[in-house]
Amino acid sequence: MIRLGRRRPAAPRRGGGEQPKVVRIALGDLRPDTDALLGRVAYLKLALFESASAVAGRATDLADREAITRVAAVVLEQHTALSSMIEARGHSSAAAMHPFTADIDRYRRRLADSGWHESVLTLHLSAGLLDGFFAGLAAGLPEPEAGRVVEILQRDIGHDALVAVLQAGLAADKRLASRLALWGRRLVGDTLLVARAALADVRDAAGQPASTEERRIEPILNDLIAAHTRRMDRLGLTA
Amino acid sequence: MIRLGRRRPAAPRRGGGEQPKVVRIALGDLRPDTDALLGRVAYLKLALFESASAVAGRATDLADREAITRVAAVVLEQHTALSSMIEARGHSSAAAMHPFTADIDRYRRRLADSGWHESVLTLHLSAGLLDGFFAGLAAGLPEPEAGRVVEILQRDIGHDALVAVLQAGLAADKRLASRLALWGRRLVGDTLLVARAALADVRDAAGQPASTEERRIEPILNDLIAAHTRRMDRLGLTA
Repeated sequence: MIRLGRRRPAAPRRGGGEQPKVVRIALGDLRPDTDALLGRVAYLKLALFESASAVAGRATDLADREAITRVAAVVLEQHTALSSMIEARGHSSAAAMHPFTADIDRYRRRLADSGWHESVLTLHLSAGLLDGFFAGLAAGLPEPEAGRVVEILQRDIGHDALVAVLQAGLAADKRLASRLALWGRRLVGDTLLVARAALADVRDAAGQPASTEERRIEPILNDLIAAHTRRMDRLGLTA
Repeated sequence: MIRLGRRRPAAPRRGGGEQPKVVRIALGDLRPDTDALLGRVAYLKLALFESASAVAGRATDLADREAITRVAAVVLEQHTALSSMIEARGHSSAAAMHPFTADIDRYRRRLADSGWHESVLTLHLSAGLLDGFFAGLAAGLPEPEAGRVVEILQRDIGHDALVAVLQAGLAADKRLASRLALWGRRLVGDTLLVARAALADVRDAAGQPASTEERRIEPILNDLIAAHTRRMDRLGLTA
């Protein structure tokens, strides 16, 4: 069983591949509820898949559309893999996802109706932050679930392709940088709320919800924000 | 090499599995252009995938949404398989698809903004008709392309699931039948235009476009309409 370490990560890495790293949550005794975590992440992936295909469909360049469709395909595979895990546990995946639809739909609505490049940035940052967060949280599940969920969430959805699309946009339009910097700052708050909401399903050794103690959540949130800042840095954007 | 037969099919089969059958095009000497056919069908699948994910995203029932997402996943795999074939031939799939975007986008726009059940019917009927048509046409490609494209287009995208969703809707709302019957009749004309447009890429033995002779196209269109009528029959709808 992969244990949640108490140690904070070493110096944050800059640049390089955008594969989600497991955020080492600095809480040693969290016990996420397996069904809740699977249902929540499966629905998140379904929602992210739909967003990704909608972003692909709005691309004006056919090569960008193909690239983002490939991202959608990986996210769909993640959803399907999580759904299969739910069904292997004897539940219907629709029923398992249902409790989490309202929160995640609200999140999507808040980030809808943006410009196209903003939506690409949303895919990149939101998937980056939430994959990292949920992989860290999933490490506290019992085995074999822990290993499988971590593996699913560590798959590279194609962040380099998203970064390339964004960099091409930034190179072509000098005003885009300030728009995207603003969007990234707005986005992070809403995305952290999605992560925080999941802590309601997590109990500590004393059976208390992990979300009741602000102090204990802080290191988790700090790690997520640090990783977010590195993603913004890579694009040359102020976080 | 699979040859296009001159024989018309035997008596049309009723009901049963909805896997696309190869329409035996009653033209013995058609030579579709490989790159054009691959580019056209790859784009059609990309467009159909985006439609399917949008339909899934609009489902009010989470189980329906999952079922239609699974359809979208198969269509996406078809697109990806065709894209890979294009790239294996040394072309960019975006460039190969580009000439066909305008026609297919126009088709999608004409069928957009319908009710949700109408959109599900569109997926079922449009994929059914066009998979059957293009599998028949692809049989006239050289090998190994013929066999591979036919295999890709004969995959079951999940028609039974779409039929089940439609049947549940028809059972719940008595007025839906007349709306869907009307929609199916409207849809078939637009869909046949998409099929006809592809005949512009096809030459006969004399090097003439196959689409120039109305008389020669007629048997193809008749077969497609017969298969369409069987799909409508299965739903209890008047074609």
